[in-house]
Amino acid sequence: MFLDKLNWRYATKKMDPSKPVSEENVARIVNAISMAPTSSGLQPFHLFVIRNAELREKLKPAAFGQEQLTDGSHLLVFAAYDGYDDARIDAVVDQHAEERPGTREMLEGYYNNLKSMYLPRDAQVNFEHAARQAYIAFGFALAAAAELGVDSTPMEGFDPEQFDEILDLKEKGLKSVVILPLGTRDEAGDWLAPMKKVRRPLDALVTNID
Amino acid sequence: MFLDKLNWRYATKKMDPSKPVSEENVARIVNAISMAPTSSGLQPFHLFVIRNAELREKLKPAAFGQEQLTDGSHLLVFAAYDGYDDARIDAVVDQHAEERPGTREMLEGYYNNLKSMYLPRDAQVNFEHAARQAYIAFGFALAAAAELGVDSTPMEGFDPEQFDEILDLKEKGLKSVVILPLGTRDEAGDWLAPMKKVRRPLDALVTNID
Repeated sequence: MFLDKLNWRYATKKMDPSKPVSEENVARIVNAISMAPTSSGLQPFHLFVIRNAELREKLKPAAFGQEQLTDGSHLLVFAAYDGYDDARIDAVVDQHAEERPGTREMLEGYYNNLKSMYLPRDAQVNFEHAARQAYIAFGFALAAAAELGVDSTPMEGFDPEQFDEILDLKEKGLKSVVILPLGTRDEAGDWLAPMKKVRRPLDALVTNID
Repeated sequence: MFLDKLNWRYATKKMDPSKPVSEENVARIVNAISMAPTSSGLQPFHLFVIRNAELREKLKPAAFGQEQLTDGSHLLVFAAYDGYDDARIDAVVDQHAEERPGTREMLEGYYNNLKSMYLPRDAQVNFEHAARQAYIAFGFALAAAAELGVDSTPMEGFDPEQFDEILDLKEKGLKSVVILPLGTRDEAGDWLAPMKKVRRPLDALVTNID
């Protein structure tokens, strides 16, 4: 159960390189990412699953040397669309029309309206919109990893421009937004492992309007 | 299991108003939201749990009349910080220092550095950063609801300015970013329920670098 793992999971600071995550579990996490809902079904991001040790070593300095990039076994990089265009939206329409016969007319009405809103907007606005969708999938990845007992470290502490450069993202119309090393906690070597989890009390985080 | 519910969950279009979500399940979903990881533990958002039917009726036109706002039993509104300031960051430091004795010096070093990066930035940049954190928690809410068999409808289709106005968010330094009605699907009345779930094929969404 994911809900039973909310206290078990934490942003692992020290991973044991001798304990790689199984490919079966990585596949389940990737599947959860692909099943995450996104605005209008656009899925406006791309996921990189990096096993290659040399590449993770090369990316590490761009993540301020954080050892989880190489002590973990897999590095997930979430890269959002740098903007929307006709081709990207038409691809969504075409796939939906193919998999849901008889819906093309409705789809075209819906997505033409969407285009009229999105395409004239500033590219940065559309990128931020895409980034938010990637973060829903990122939440699903964290939930899936926790449920499977896979450790992970959610990271914004990296230089997106260097990542984009190393992974050739610009030419793909993508920008890296958040990364997630997967691995196995080295509990004895992790200063954060014994610490109490701290969250704002519910009455400070939540307002009930009954 | 959350992972077994990935196909079960969908953006419910028609909810049955006679089947409210139990308060026990709502509490579990709210707990998952509060346990979601956020950048530097800032939790830069606030959650509104709206049961009040009159208020949901008042908000509905600002969500283009979508019936789930009133056919569901609970409406979750995720509102991100409109920016960061000393007080908001100091509150995080104080709580962590209290709950993790002996860490104040380390915390102050870390968060003073964070302040030097965040506080001079454009307010919009900080709001977008906060919004992304809210989306991680939103992903956790969706995962928790699915695991519990609670239906939900992730919605960006609402007018944030009207929501902010109705909920007095501006004076609280908040901006609504995404909403989630909770309820129970009315399967017979929901055009989307029988439709095949459509996702980009994994080889179009994911690049493996081995």
